[in-house]
Amino acid sequence: MTITTIPGGVTAPAGFQASGLSCGIKASGRPDLALLVADRPASAAAIFTVNRAVAAPVLVSRAQLHAGGGLVRAIVTNSGCANACTGPQGDADAREMVARTAEALGCAVDQVLVASTGVIGVQLPMDKIRAGLPAAVAALAADGGTRAADAIMTTDPFPKSHAVEVATPAGTFRVGGMAKGSGMIEPRMATMLGYLTTDAEVEVDRLQRALVEACRDTFNAITVDGEPSTNDTVFALASGASGVAIDDDTEAALVAGLRAVALTLALDIVRGGEGATKLLRITVRAAATEADAWLAARAIANSLLVKTAVHGGDPNWGRLVAAAGRSGAAFTLAGARVRIGPHVLFEDGRPYDDRSPAAAAYLHGTDLEIEVGLGTGGHATATVYTCDLSAEYVRINAEYRT
Amino acid sequence: MTITTIPGGVTAPAGFQASGLSCGIKASGRPDLALLVADRPASAAAIFTVNRAVAAPVLVSRAQLHAGGGLVRAIVTNSGCANACTGPQGDADAREMVARTAEALGCAVDQVLVASTGVIGVQLPMDKIRAGLPAAVAALAADGGTRAADAIMTTDPFPKSHAVEVATPAGTFRVGGMAKGSGMIEPRMATMLGYLTTDAEVEVDRLQRALVEACRDTFNAITVDGEPSTNDTVFALASGASGVAIDDDTEAALVAGLRAVALTLALDIVRGGEGATKLLRITVRAAATEADAWLAARAIANSLLVKTAVHGGDPNWGRLVAAAGRSGAAFTLAGARVRIGPHVLFEDGRPYDDRSPAAAAYLHGTDLEIEVGLGTGGHATATVYTCDLSAEYVRINAEYRT
Repeated sequence: MTITTIPGGVTAPAGFQASGLSCGIKASGRPDLALLVADRPASAAAIFTVNRAVAAPVLVSRAQLHAGGGLVRAIVTNSGCANACTGPQGDADAREMVARTAEALGCAVDQVLVASTGVIGVQLPMDKIRAGLPAAVAALAADGGTRAADAIMTTDPFPKSHAVEVATPAGTFRVGGMAKGSGMIEPRMATMLGYLTTDAEVEVDRLQRALVEACRDTFNAITVDGEPSTNDTVFALASGASGVAIDDDTEAALVAGLRAVALTLALDIVRGGEGATKLLRITVRAAATEADAWLAARAIANSLLVKTAVHGGDPNWGRLVAAAGRSGAAFTLAGARVRIGPHVLFEDGRPYDDRSPAAAAYLHGTDLEIEVGLGTGGHATATVYTCDLSAEYVRINAEYRT
Repeated sequence: MTITTIPGGVTAPAGFQASGLSCGIKASGRPDLALLVADRPASAAAIFTVNRAVAAPVLVSRAQLHAGGGLVRAIVTNSGCANACTGPQGDADAREMVARTAEALGCAVDQVLVASTGVIGVQLPMDKIRAGLPAAVAALAADGGTRAADAIMTTDPFPKSHAVEVATPAGTFRVGGMAKGSGMIEPRMATMLGYLTTDAEVEVDRLQRALVEACRDTFNAITVDGEPSTNDTVFALASGASGVAIDDDTEAALVAGLRAVALTLALDIVRGGEGATKLLRITVRAAATEADAWLAARAIANSLLVKTAVHGGDPNWGRLVAAAGRSGAAFTLAGARVRIGPHVLFEDGRPYDDRSPAAAAYLHGTDLEIEVGLGTGGHATATVYTCDLSAEYVRINAEYRT
């Protein structure tokens, strides 16, 4: 099996078209309406937020997936308004987006999913969406993936789009994807909004299993601010247009393809995190259990003191130890270890502060590795991806609505 | 029972002396060595950090309390260096601080406790502490409480000192206290460093029980950045010098006095939180259980998106709902409720955005109340105190060591 990066994003696999345009939701005039359409009903899978304050489009898409038996023709997405905490009117609006998209495409109503992202608690401007939908259908194109990726952004500094070709002895298929960040990111069960497409032929149950597996150490291993949102969703659609059918033998190749695209998109979400200037790969080792490894890695990745120290280029390993120590994971200070890049700053209960200047120089980089050993004698490990915390994050989030 | 505020801080109760001076640990020359001494062995109680990366002085004080049978003559404290993650040398240094203090005071070695606060992972400059200790003993005074409160500060913008007089039918006694903040604050089982004194006569077991009770909704209900530290400790000393013995009938009065001092100090820690400009009282109601109420209140209080929105004066109730929804507490969106000051912005699943301008005006204040109802039909409630998150927090913590 070989995996090669290719252009085209979510429309790189055969059997998909997409579009993205401005229908006037965003005052800035930037694109805010995206359509992703399969030429014929595609197998579909999804993972939704674990937040109990669930947005209307999440509830509607979950019900639609069930009603349509896992077959989907289209996903309609708006940015600029999350349609979350919007009461019965929000539910009705999400259903109307589905119905009008189905009507414009001439497909079954239960084969359309919906997603929204943006400010919470504001009703959708349905007049603008009604006017925009026919235009979005008219603009559908087999090279429309990057325009759709543009139209799902909110505070993202750049669009996130990726695709690969997976060559297996059984045949070659493609996997594409797009995603949006960039605040309220600690997906746990999915990211803010992620879309994966493939032209492999995959049964619905197998696609769901592969999606969960591919997200485990990609979308589910990132955090910007420890805030799982009300609208987190990751979708996967399989068109079958490549003619390559996935079976037990080739499922691993499908997972590998999905994972490759998901990892690139996930890391791009972190790189584009609000106010972010550095990408951190935080690996916890020597944990007693895998659950402990994740617990400690998330605690470190979400520590304000760790994130601000890295932002300031300070190799403050004491904050890493303190975050691991308070995480709830089993932890033995005398056996703990901290490595910042190639520099071990704490080992066997003792600091090596003479290495601080070298570690500080390493932290001037923008793609950083930090490793914390919990000293328990266990061998479990986990890696979480996050970014630094800057004054710019505060500025963005203190001024988001005002 | 009446409780009246009085001056004097930790030396307001009879039977205590204190001092604070600079021994040269801090490059700034600000005070960094504090002594709190009881004229005769006092009943002592303490609550220590739940962080598993425990600092040397915490380990030593815990052992000392046990060795001395709960009787204590002195607590020696340095700021500017936490003596945490300092290996066997750190343990030896903490023990030497205890031994030299006992020697200078002429008391039993097992009647001295020790505390340190400041940067993690740096060895104590013992030569400076050795030179400073005799001077600190010489400077002991019955009005030294405020000087000691000065000497335990690190990044605190102001010292935290408070005292009250408790008048009961059985007699009048006093409670004093001091504390330091102001980052790495989410105490759970104690705050960074807190000291409570009383001239009531209290058995050791009763004092421990009263201290735990008094801290439950004071020191243990605050958070600045969700970071329980390696050195968190709160001490209580009872001199008995007032002649008022606490029994089952007057224990409630003792708890009330301790609680009054602890609450003032706790709120001052939040007000003096790194970069803080506003104090927030976040109350969660309609929770299914008390544990759920605390879970949701802490999740809201530690939400970066809530803290930045409040900093920017944005009544972004959607972020409050989203934080409650992801907290893990039982939550029913359709019954949820958000109140910012007197303004209800979300109720019965529906936003009231016409009230946003009034709520935004309310948020210009510096002492704010926010209430979130979880809509479960339950009646449990919890209040957590926190502050906003500013660019100044990032600046302080990106530059703390460098």
